This record gives sequence, structure tokens and C-alpha cells, in this order.
Amino acid sequence: MSDFLRQGLSKVEAYVPGEQPPGEAQFVKLNTNENPYPPSPVVEHAVRHFDACSLRLYPDPVCTELRTQAARVYRVSPEQIFVGNGSDEVLALIMRIAIDPGDRVVYPYPTYVLYRTLAQIAGAEPVEVELEEDFSLPADFPAQAGRVTFLACPNSPTANLFRPELIEATLDEAKGLVVVDEAYADFIGVSMLDRLERYRNLVVLRTLSKSYGLAGLRVGFAFANRNLIEAFYRVKDSYNVSRFSQVVARAALSDAGYMKATVARIINSRLKAVDRLKQRGFRVYPTAANFLFAEHERLSGQQVQQGLKAKGILVRYFDQRRLQQGVRITIGTEEQMERLYQALDEIQSA
Amino acid sequence: MSDFLRQGLSKVEAYVPGEQPPGEAQFVKLNTNENPYPPSPVVEHAVRHFDACSLRLYPDPVCTELRTQAARVYRVSPEQIFVGNGSDEVLALIMRIAIDPGDRVVYPYPTYVLYRTLAQIAGAEPVEVELEEDFSLPADFPAQAGRVTFLACPNSPTANLFRPELIEATLDEAKGLVVVDEAYADFIGVSMLDRLERYRNLVVLRTLSKSYGLAGLRVGFAFANRNLIEAFYRVKDSYNVSRFSQVVARAALSDAGYMKATVARIINSRLKAVDRLKQRGFRVYPTAANFLFAEHERLSGQQVQQGLKAKGILVRYFDQRRLQQGVRITIGTEEQMERLYQALDEIQSA
Repeated sequence: MSDFLRQGLSKVEAYVPGEQPPGEAQFVKLNTNENPYPPSPVVEHAVRHFDACSLRLYPDPVCTELRTQAARVYRVSPEQIFVGNGSDEVLALIMRIAIDPGDRVVYPYPTYVLYRTLAQIAGAEPVEVELEEDFSLPADFPAQAGRVTFLACPNSPTANLFRPELIEATLDEAKGLVVVDEAYADFIGVSMLDRLERYRNLVVLRTLSKSYGLAGLRVGFAFANRNLIEAFYRVKDSYNVSRFSQVVARAALSDAGYMKATVARIINSRLKAVDRLKQRGFRVYPTAANFLFAEHERLSGQQVQQGLKAKGILVRYFDQRRLQQGVRITIGTEEQMERLYQALDEIQSA
Repeated sequence: MSDFLRQGLSKVEAYVPGEQPPGEAQFVKLNTNENPYPPSPVVEHAVRHFDACSLRLYPDPVCTELRTQAARVYRVSPEQIFVGNGSDEVLALIMRIAIDPGDRVVYPYPTYVLYRTLAQIAGAEPVEVELEEDFSLPADFPAQAGRVTFLACPNSPTANLFRPELIEATLDEAKGLVVVDEAYADFIGVSMLDRLERYRNLVVLRTLSKSYGLAGLRVGFAFANRNLIEAFYRVKDSYNVSRFSQVVARAALSDAGYMKATVARIINSRLKAVDRLKQRGFRVYPTAANFLFAEHERLSGQQVQQGLKAKGILVRYFDQRRLQQGVRITIGTEEQMERLYQALDEIQSA
């Protein structure tokens, strides 16, 4: 590491995103929890009519019109919303507003690996609380809450919900922020968004990347009480969401009906997928998201992942304790899922 | 400030961007250093043919194709480039990779106010080195270099260049990073980009916001040696530049000829503007950018700014020591500049 950089930086394990192969059209991509369906026709219309000349001017630094639209959809007030360049930026800003070096950052294990990376970057003390054997939250989790506590709900890569009573108990006991990352909440309809008034330390995250099919747009939201949201504005980059992203995100949110329809299709495929995978020797953990975590009775996670990759299908394998036996499979279109089942049959009979 | 937030946060003075009035079409906007000309026809073409369906997928996390294109234009290698969500993000990441609380962050006064905000957010010690009366860099600046030293060159809001020998002396003496922010360098053609190999502590920043007329797109670049660039990847958000921004930025860079033509027009208008403003009782400081800093012999900066705003023309006034006598005026189209001169005549004869 260079002399010009922070010593602590050498401890940071960079987050490794799922593979995005260059010839991605050749692969069935079930590895990064993207939506297999295109965005809404309203989005297509907004893209087609986007005014290139408007790019000359800086974007609205506080996303006024987008927040007005989001307030309607998520049933909160615009002052309870911060818009980020994806939830990733929102997560980074949470560290900027809440964490001094040495503070405890608490989250379950296993969960979204980025929480650990963020804690390391901030020089915080990462505290990982082991999930139960079935990946549920342990009863003593609330007592261990830190300066910042992260709960992805549904969790990734395990796909399960945590019990709302335990999340509320965490909010009650925590002397710091509790961040409920609801990236996948539209796939189950359970949310803490209606608790913003009750809990002054609650931050709820949402994103357009999954249910709205806009991972390439980079728009994520933080919802919290007004005082907390004000802190985000204090530390954010001046113009953090591009003009294009603001316009297109607004269009997407104006057609929440389309989102719900694609979510319904995905849930339908998910139900089928659980059965089909069980038939093929997998233990499938309960899923509340647009993906599932499944362990084969005979093959390791890596064997499944490599076998499928050889047949043009990408799923996600995590080379980490407690996850090596399984793979995370994003729910694709019906056609993509049929290709998955067929490939699994071929692998098993090989 | 909420109990759940860092105590240090109360000391952060949020950066206040220039006014973006909602009915912006009604105003002549000469207040945020945007380019008055539309982006290249190649950009328009890329926007018109942008594939909305591609937004379903995450963007390339490391902007491979965009860096290949940028490497050609800026005559560096792709491994010497990091692409950010605007230079703002790059600046924030520089703090993440180089600054521990209490470290010295050094920059001239007056300069871009964001440097102070970033130092405050990081809990660093901001050290402001007074510029000479003519806004040139003092000879003892290099000796004061910090863990991170910022030099905007051309400087904003003063519009002047700093002497390359003094920048090189700073690079020689500094025991930390020296960040040369060249947001406006295309308007003068002077750059430190050819010194990347010589100085292992040099970071050069460029942006598409000014010369390429793409402030609304949010694309900025850091150039440095490969080891330094690797550190940016270690701490960056996973997918920090949207698909749209990557595609459109690539199109813009493929037509550097158009950029040079609009820059030439702006420089031409700038030459005229210096004369016209002098004729109207202004002291105009030497300018190497797409804006100038001018002090009226009789009216305060605020009086000029408010008088012009009443006539539908926005210029930037900074309510800060050493800047209150003047205004920063972005060079607009010839037609916009004629409206400015006319408005100034009306104000003076009132």
C-alpha cells in the first residue's frame, strides 16, 4: 500500500460484485438479482423523449420532483426521503453521518458483504452476529445493536425475512441507527416504512434496481425522520443523481402497477422454482425475495455453480463459511428457469 | 443534532451549490459555470439510441469501455483512470483513501468551498493558505503541503492559473497526495496530466461537466499512477456510474473536436467580455476558465448580483472574505453576454 494512503486501507476487503460477463447476452444471468423483465413502457417512453440538451445543466441537487413522486408511492412525506446514486451511496453516507473510528457496526452473518467493507473503510469495529441454523435472527440480536446496525430484510443471500418483533426490539434497544435494507421488500410486501414516525433511529432503504428492473440506473432511497434526512443533505456530494436518473426514476415510480405485475410473475416463477429444485435434490431455504438460496444434497455450491456456468447459466456462489454448500439463484423468466432445470438434470445425470 | 449522529457533524458547513431556479428557462444562467452550448451531436445520437431495456442490468462496475476511450483522449493508460459520479464523488473518495481524523488537509484561500466541507466531514484539520493579493499562489505554499493538498487550476472562483513550478514544488515537498483539480483546464490547455509518471503522489481531476457541456450527466475522472488508482477501486461504491452515463460519456469523448470548437467560441466571448466589463467600471482578474471574477469600482458584489437578478440574469456572489467586492460570471453565448452588458448599462445609469 502506498505511503500516501491511510494505513487502515490495507485491511479493507473490497466488495466483489457478481460477474458481469462481457458477452452477457450469451449467458442466462441468474447471479446478480436483476429483474428478468424490461422496465415499464412508461420508462421506455421517458428514455425515448429524454432531452439530450438538458444535460448541459446541473441536475436538481435535492431531487425535488422525484421525491414528490416517491412520497406518493411509498406513502411518506418528501422531507422523509433522501435519493442516492443507488443504495450503495446511501449506505456509504450512513457511515459518513454516524460513524467515528472505533464505533461498533453490527450486522448478522451471513448477510450482504458490503456492510463489512463499509465498516472497514470507516475504521469501525465490525461485529458479526451469527444467524441461527435456519438463517433466522437470534433472540439476543437486539441486545447487541451498535452505533449502526444493518438488517437486510429480506436478507441476502439467504432470502428470508427477519421477524418484525425482533427488528422492533432492535430499534428499541439500539443507542444508534438501525438500517433496514429493504432492497427486496416489494417481493414480499412486508416493510418498516410505516414505523418512521415511531422510531427516530430507523432508516429504511429501498432501490429501483430489483422490483422496478432498473439496476443500471442507480437510484436508491433512504427513508427516515426529517432530522436524520437533513444529515444526509449535509454530507452528500453536491449533485449526486444525474438528470437522466431523476427523470427516468420518476417515470418508473409513476407506473407502480407495472412493477407489481412483474413482481407477481416473478413470485409465480419462484413458487415453481422451489418445487422444481426440491425435486432435483436441493434443500431450498424459505424465500421472500426474487432469488433463493439452495443447497444440493450431493454437490457443493461451487460444483453447482461451475457446472451451470459450463452450460451458459450464471448463478452466484459465495466462498464463505456457512454458504459454501449452496448457491444463490436469481428468479428469471419462465424460459430461463426451464433452461436452468434442464441444465441441472444434465449435470445430475452426467 | 440527533444523538444518533457523529458529534463532529455539527461543525460541517454544507456546500451550497449555485442557484438552479425552477423556471430556469426564464433566466440567463451565468452562475454555475455550465457550458452555454448543447452537447455534441454524437451525444444526442447516443441519447436517442440508448436502449431502455439495458437498464435492467447493472452497469460495468469499472467502466472498461469508457476508460479505454478516455485513455485515448487524455493520452494516459486505462489503468491510470478512475471514473466517478462527477468529480464530487472522486473528491469524496480521495478523503476515504487518504485521510484519518486529525490529518492536515491544505488548500488555498479563496478556492472551491467544497474542499473545506470535505475536510470537515472527514474530521481532518483544514489548513487554508492565503493567496496573494492578485490571487496567485504564495511562494511558501509548497512547504505547507498536507496529507492531502488541493489545488484547483484554473482556480475557482478567481479563474486564474497557478504557476506550474509551484505545483511541481508542492508535489516534491508533499508527504501526501496533491490533487490538481483541472475542471477548467480545457479552457486554457495547461495540464499536469503528463506528469503522472514522474509524481507518485499526483492526482489530476477532470470532468465532463464544463468543456463537454455535460454537467447533468455526472461524470468525472481521477488520473494517477496505477497503485493510487487501485485504492479508489478498493473503497468505491460497487456500481458508481450508471449505464446511461457510461454510454453518453463515451460518445462525448469520441467527439473531442466538437468540445474544442465550443471551447474556442467560449474563449472568444471571454476575450470580449474582459474588455466590455472593463469599459463598464469593472476590475477583471486574469481568467483561464469559462468564467471570470470581476469587481466593480462602485457597486459591491451583492449589488451587482441582485441588480442583475432583477433583470433576469444570474451571476454568482460569494458572501466570503476577499470575495464580497466581486461576482463570478460564467461566459455564456454571445447573445446572453449582450444581454448581460445591456443589463449592466441599465443598472449603472439607474
